[in-house]
Amino acid sequence: MREAFNKQLDDISEDLVQLTRRVGSAMNRATQALLDADLRLAEEVIAADAGIDEITSEIEEKCFDAIALQAPVASDLRIVIGALRIASSLERMGDLAEHVAKQARMRYPNPSIPQELRGTFAEMGGIAEAIVSQTGAVIATKDVTLATDIARHDGEMDRLHRELFRIVLSPSWKHGVESAVDVTLLSRFYERYADHAVSVTRRVVTIVTGEPYAGVSLEA
Amino acid sequence: MREAFNKQLDDISEDLVQLTRRVGSAMNRATQALLDADLRLAEEVIAADAGIDEITSEIEEKCFDAIALQAPVASDLRIVIGALRIASSLERMGDLAEHVAKQARMRYPNPSIPQELRGTFAEMGGIAEAIVSQTGAVIATKDVTLATDIARHDGEMDRLHRELFRIVLSPSWKHGVESAVDVTLLSRFYERYADHAVSVTRRVVTIVTGEPYAGVSLEA
Repeated sequence: MREAFNKQLDDISEDLVQLTRRVGSAMNRATQALLDADLRLAEEVIAADAGIDEITSEIEEKCFDAIALQAPVASDLRIVIGALRIASSLERMGDLAEHVAKQARMRYPNPSIPQELRGTFAEMGGIAEAIVSQTGAVIATKDVTLATDIARHDGEMDRLHRELFRIVLSPSWKHGVESAVDVTLLSRFYERYADHAVSVTRRVVTIVTGEPYAGVSLEA
Repeated sequence: MREAFNKQLDDISEDLVQLTRRVGSAMNRATQALLDADLRLAEEVIAADAGIDEITSEIEEKCFDAIALQAPVASDLRIVIGALRIASSLERMGDLAEHVAKQARMRYPNPSIPQELRGTFAEMGGIAEAIVSQTGAVIATKDVTLATDIARHDGEMDRLHRELFRIVLSPSWKHGVESAVDVTLLSRFYERYADHAVSVTRRVVTIVTGEPYAGVSLEA
């Protein structure tokens, strides 16, 4: 019984790590589609979201079966419920990558972002990639010391998000209202993506340590 | 055993209905704070979010206890897991109301929205109020025919969201970039609020009918 349950947990954990890779790849390619105004890549990301949703559903069913068949209590039950929520957050990260890709598609063949903000979005994309990759590592290794790095990345994303507002709202902004609206929404998608990664990390830390992790705050 | 479980479910259901009232009141007052540039009301909404988070945590603990103590399987387990997720969505709706209030606070003593969009946001606030109130009714009564109304309200919210973009991006927009960015984010908060209400409704419908409800689509 115990062995079967542990095997189920390992299986779910592996699936969650795989899901972090999928939503990481989605955001990475969405960023590329955005920077290159690459319609085909944007379409690929949009089409791939159904696969992410499917993996999420499979994980949910596995969690469901683990509870129904093994009737876990106390910390075992918290692990499975935690996994369910981690899956939801990761699915939402996939949606946010899809939103970025849709934005790239909407403005095609024009770029969605002006030249002077390319660096900012390239950096946001890089942070998104780093944060989701470390989130996968936290799930795989249960090494909660990685949470510090993840919080730092999230802080960096927030800084870029604020910096972008400063640029868009400065008197020297020359790209008009449409572009301002586009980059504001895009920036929010990246910021939310990082927030969800932090949320996943907090859940892992809570499961491992049995206590809420005070060091990672989800939203300012 | 069965009786105790049913009593727990009723209790959780009542708490969820109470939570819809709290997040409904939060969005309603946030809208008022926005329209009146009322700092005090905005601060109240922001302060009240901690209470919403607390109720959510209590519901989560009750769901957790119901699973741990009663070891439900099959549809009973799906009801409790569904309740957990409904609580998460409602908590997120509370956050979105808080975001609206923070926006009102940020621009105080100036209004966050130009005169010509007051009607749009008043309408969005009205739809938010209607949709969350009907979401509470779906949870309380399990009357899934209400889902049609909720989907209609969500469609109306999406229409207002698109209409707002049309106004902001038209050549006659005279309020500059900052105001465009503000109202874009605000409009997205209302749109997401309605999306979460639809998501809650879908979960109730799935629990009641045992099948995903195809009539309510979460996002276009």
